[in-house]
Amino acid sequence: MFFASDNSGPVHPEVLDLMAQSNTGFAMAYGADPMMDEVRTRLRDVFEAPEASIHLVATGTAANSLALATLCQPYETVFCSPVAHIHEDECNAPEFYTGGAKLTLVAGGDKMTPEALSASIAGEGVRGVHGPQRGPVSITQVTERGSVYTLNELRDLCSVAKGYDLPVHLDGARFANAMVVLGCTPAEMTWKAGVDAVSFGGTKNGLMGVEAVIFFDPAHAWEFELRRKRGAHLFSKHRYLSAQMAGYLRDDLWIRSARAANANAARLADGLRAKGAEFLHHPDANMIFVAFPRFRHQALFAKGAMYNLWGGKLEGDPDEMLACRLVCDWSISHDQIDAFLDMI
Amino acid sequence: MFFASDNSGPVHPEVLDLMAQSNTGFAMAYGADPMMDEVRTRLRDVFEAPEASIHLVATGTAANSLALATLCQPYETVFCSPVAHIHEDECNAPEFYTGGAKLTLVAGGDKMTPEALSASIAGEGVRGVHGPQRGPVSITQVTERGSVYTLNELRDLCSVAKGYDLPVHLDGARFANAMVVLGCTPAEMTWKAGVDAVSFGGTKNGLMGVEAVIFFDPAHAWEFELRRKRGAHLFSKHRYLSAQMAGYLRDDLWIRSARAANANAARLADGLRAKGAEFLHHPDANMIFVAFPRFRHQALFAKGAMYNLWGGKLEGDPDEMLACRLVCDWSISHDQIDAFLDMI
Amino acid sequence: MFFASDNSGPVHPEVLDLMAQSNTGFAMAYGADPMMDEVRTRLRDVFEAPEASIHLVATGTAANSLALATLCQPYETVFCSPVAHIHEDECNAPEFYTGGAKLTLVAGGDKMTPEALSASIAGEGVRGVHGPQRGPVSITQVTERGSVYTLNELRDLCSVAKGYDLPVHLDGARFANAMVVLGCTPAEMTWKAGVDAVSFGGTKNGLMGVEAVIFFDPAHAWEFELRRKRGAHLFSKHRYLSAQMAGYLRDDLWIRSARAANANAARLADGLRAKGAEFLHHPDANMIFVAFPRFRHQALFAKGAMYNLWGGKLEGDPDEMLACRLVCDWSISHDQIDAFLDMI
Amino acid sequence: MFFASDNSGPVHPEVLDLMAQSNTGFAMAYGADPMMDEVRTRLRDVFEAPEASIHLVATGTAANSLALATLCQPYETVFCSPVAHIHEDECNAPEFYTGGAKLTLVAGGDKMTPEALSASIAGEGVRGVHGPQRGPVSITQVTERGSVYTLNELRDLCSVAKGYDLPVHLDGARFANAMVVLGCTPAEMTWKAGVDAVSFGGTKNGLMGVEAVIFFDPAHAWEFELRRKRGAHLFSKHRYLSAQMAGYLRDDLWIRSARAANANAARLADGLRAKGAEFLHHPDANMIFVAFPRFRHQALFAKGAMYNLWGGKLEGDPDEMLACRLVCDWSISHDQIDAFLDMI
Repeated sequence: MFFASDNSGPVHPEVLDLMAQSNTGFAMAYGADPMMDEVRTRLRDVFEAPEASIHLVATGTAANSLALATLCQPYETVFCSPVAHIHEDECNAPEFYTGGAKLTLVAGGDKMTPEALSASIAGEGVRGVHGPQRGPVSITQVTERGSVYTLNELRDLCSVAKGYDLPVHLDGARFANAMVVLGCTPAEMTWKAGVDAVSFGGTKNGLMGVEAVIFFDPAHAWEFELRRKRGAHLFSKHRYLSAQMAGYLRDDLWIRSARAANANAARLADGLRAKGAEFLHHPDANMIFVAFPRFRHQALFAKGAMYNLWGGKLEGDPDEMLACRLVCDWSISHDQIDAFLDMI
Repeated sequence: MFFASDNSGPVHPEVLDLMAQSNTGFAMAYGADPMMDEVRTRLRDVFEAPEASIHLVATGTAANSLALATLCQPYETVFCSPVAHIHEDECNAPEFYTGGAKLTLVAGGDKMTPEALSASIAGEGVRGVHGPQRGPVSITQVTERGSVYTLNELRDLCSVAKGYDLPVHLDGARFANAMVVLGCTPAEMTWKAGVDAVSFGGTKNGLMGVEAVIFFDPAHAWEFELRRKRGAHLFSKHRYLSAQMAGYLRDDLWIRSARAANANAARLADGLRAKGAEFLHHPDANMIFVAFPRFRHQALFAKGAMYNLWGGKLEGDPDEMLACRLVCDWSISHDQIDAFLDMI
Repeated sequence: MFFASDNSGPVHPEVLDLMAQSNTGFAMAYGADPMMDEVRTRLRDVFEAPEASIHLVATGTAANSLALATLCQPYETVFCSPVAHIHEDECNAPEFYTGGAKLTLVAGGDKMTPEALSASIAGEGVRGVHGPQRGPVSITQVTERGSVYTLNELRDLCSVAKGYDLPVHLDGARFANAMVVLGCTPAEMTWKAGVDAVSFGGTKNGLMGVEAVIFFDPAHAWEFELRRKRGAHLFSKHRYLSAQMAGYLRDDLWIRSARAANANAARLADGLRAKGAEFLHHPDANMIFVAFPRFRHQALFAKGAMYNLWGGKLEGDPDEMLACRLVCDWSISHDQIDAFLDMI
Repeated sequence: MFFASDNSGPVHPEVLDLMAQSNTGFAMAYGADPMMDEVRTRLRDVFEAPEASIHLVATGTAANSLALATLCQPYETVFCSPVAHIHEDECNAPEFYTGGAKLTLVAGGDKMTPEALSASIAGEGVRGVHGPQRGPVSITQVTERGSVYTLNELRDLCSVAKGYDLPVHLDGARFANAMVVLGCTPAEMTWKAGVDAVSFGGTKNGLMGVEAVIFFDPAHAWEFELRRKRGAHLFSKHRYLSAQMAGYLRDDLWIRSARAANANAARLADGLRAKGAEFLHHPDANMIFVAFPRFRHQALFAKGAMYNLWGGKLEGDPDEMLACRLVCDWSISHDQIDAFLDMI
């Protein structure tokens, strides 16, 4: 009954098998391993982007920070949601990697609206050399509150950015979870909508620790490679990163896993709804935000359930409503979900 | 016949097995996994340092850069060998992580001498605020040319550093290979000699990608943790890093592997010596630098041997002597070594 | 009729005279000039802080950025007003100098309230290593909207910071203008209230370009000196900075000038009030924010008045109300103020 | 008898007069003052470079660091002399401003030779992403040991840089002193030789604190302006910087002052030679490096002479030869020089 995060689940057996298969003899280091060719070819196919540059790193923060550093000058500012992972959960990594760029928090909630983004961009860059210059827009899909931008919403945000000639980065730590919700192609959710660079997540969807950074304009490739090495994110035994991503793409494992995770969340949400739970956000993908009275949380924790309270403490008035976040990994069984629901 | 680097060999099966065993259910993320407790306990035992702070990262450059950033202010300079990995092979990562500190190259060759180190330190920090201030000393053991500092040499270098109240970092990418040569304990090669922080390498000795950073003074622990996260080097699925390091330490695998690698190199060196090869450096551990006439390299490459030329090109005067580096992994079989020798 | 900024006025003749008097023969460079001793002694007297460390730089942005960099680690965040100069008008200089720290904008308007500051600090630093750590609080006095914090307000803000063991920086670009409003001592407005470091402005109050950075705890002195040099803000011909600050302090010129500037603003505000102008903020010191119909601005600009519109353009609907900022330098004559008022 | 440095002399009266004349009423801030137009026009004329972008800063370290940061990526390395000011006397400012680029010290002495520069460049950038990439070449003219590169030498160095497609920066802290030695035009010593960016020094030649940064390709202008502001080196009361540089250029003051300084040094050198002094470097411009027995230094210091010992201490064996540096400012009188010589 572990709903704390999809970053804590196991590696999918198909991935681990491929890693083990790769474990024979020597392989060229630093990305020159043969399986990286497969990864490059498949990702270009999947994204219908034959020119795209493809790079693997091991953490989502590395993917985001290095992608942004490649797109952003140190005297610029990145536009993002006030609850974006790059703002709240990366301990200043984007500021570090960009050499001290700023993050401008677009007013509003979790999801940026085109109007708010437009106002935010319009408000920066008006002070000549005195203020930060306008830099990239970073969109999180699935958002940190479990919402999925529609294709129209993505296109509208990108369109605002393009109107100011600004590049767009997509933090796709849960890329697959969003895509299966939208029923669209990877290209539709990225470059066809106006996205320039993607952090294509794998770790939260059954890998051990691999994210691909994809630039649709390969002019960024060499700079990214240098920044990755300088950031100490180039792996010598890169073949094990390649094997993870190759396994992820083979037989559509990435889509199967995302579907499983989303279906798990839907089952859990249905159960919670049936029990009258109060939802804070609509659970679009595999994250659910609900509020229970505190005594219920206390009971659940006592019985061994694992999840994160969201802005409150376990001790206190037993009847006070207290929010929590429940994240469903691909690997959770229906039995576990049902057992959890039974405990409520 | 792969002698290009020990960073290109396979993961030791005992390690991969332990990783696979760890692949069940959920585990707390970000280093709170139970096996990290084992790692911490064992490394403290191994180093006879019950207070030491222990941290895992996935690349050697991350270990070195983060350790140095924790010990060094941005207005200081790091003293190191002119051929140190941190200088030549990390694409300015130490400069990046320290916020722009300098590296002062101690005059001389591969191995620093106490006299040269002393002269180098004496020469810096004499210009008040105008020059960089004196910062940490970084020692590479095994050196980049395959030499091993004796315990006396290490103590003397540390003693010079301590005379100036400077901290000492040990880049131990090949820590185990050096230790088995010296026949000493980990403590003797580190804190007993005067070392403050160690990059304790695993990747080049049979792991997939894990290095431990060890501070003997735990006061550095929290700053390191923050710098690691900010550098995007904190893994969510940390249990797979823990499993690697746990497997490395169980049953002395790290020592067995280092002994195997060194023995492989000794066998190769003996064979080369018998064939009259010209050694550039004494092969103390698992790296050999020899020169052959170019036609020999051409023949070896034609037959599929893999290794790095050292400062020359494969095309040119066939009789010219050309240096190369041969690195022996723990995994190379005696047959492969003998087959290579037969080709000469 | 120049009300654009107090950073555009002339140097006070007493200051220029002292600079000219200093212009004989040689003087020790880099702050070892004799007049710096006078500056140090006088500032310590003025602030009743015999141990304070005193440093001169030439721009307000340098004073703020270097002071903050000395107080802040790169993985921390600085708490400040959303309209703070360090956020809006320094082109990411604080981020640059701190090595990539973040600025957390305290909710609300120009002036921070203790409640909002407390909520903001409470909201950061709760995510372990994942979010930025809590860093210094930076207070702007006079604020960017012309308000002056009372001593009680300052004490309350500092008290919130101290409750979290955070240092407090005061951006005193218009320090003197605030102090004469409060009728307090420099000590009361700084260390007695809980301030740890001050940017003590001179440039906006009749100097050519000098600000003093004052740390009440001299333990920061040497680090600041190194950061100043590394930031290229250490002047060889430092005697001309010393002469400016010495002239500023002699015969209370700094207080006389601030009184003159504030009196000029009061005269202008009275005149505007008499004409029914609409004030956006109460003009506590020497800055006035008022709104006129656009046609009035157009007429004023046509007649040669110089000031900044605040968030609007000169072209458009003539009857629309449009805000502007009017800043009074010490050097503006009553005739100029009256002539301006007559034009309205 | 002050020969410690030309950074400690007075401001030339013609410059101070123009600063005083500029001290009337208001002037647009941040470089929009009218006298900056004069500076821009004159410098473009002087350099025969009608498109050049011209920027003023107040310190030589700022000029060098900001110019290099504009030309250099953080994953690159700057090639310079081992005794370059940017390496020895700027407390890591170039590393700070470039975001952590490296400085590669070209083997040899004070002056770089084309051969050594070529070897140094050839030796870097050969490790793919692992080592730093090749970045700008920085040449110091006059060198830190008082030598002047001939035009042929400059052209040859630039030609080496151009062969690798690398930009060239000239640290001209003593630009005028070198130019009058060579009897050439500013254009010949810069862009006609292959220089891309110049730190055009004024402070060491009679200004209070102003250096111009000149890019012959104006494409760098906007980035430089942003980096200058972000570095806190943009002055609000910029008119006093403009006045200094305008005064410097009017009536060829800069050339007159440099001639005076060089003539002073020649007079001093002749006198020293007549007394049998031992020269360490040929005194091309206004810096002299000679060795005396220690007892002579002791006597000179006792009589009030001011200059820097170069690598030794005043106490010790009285007969030991001890080097010193004697720098002649434009302002030293012949009487002072002769009095100094008489004391020997």
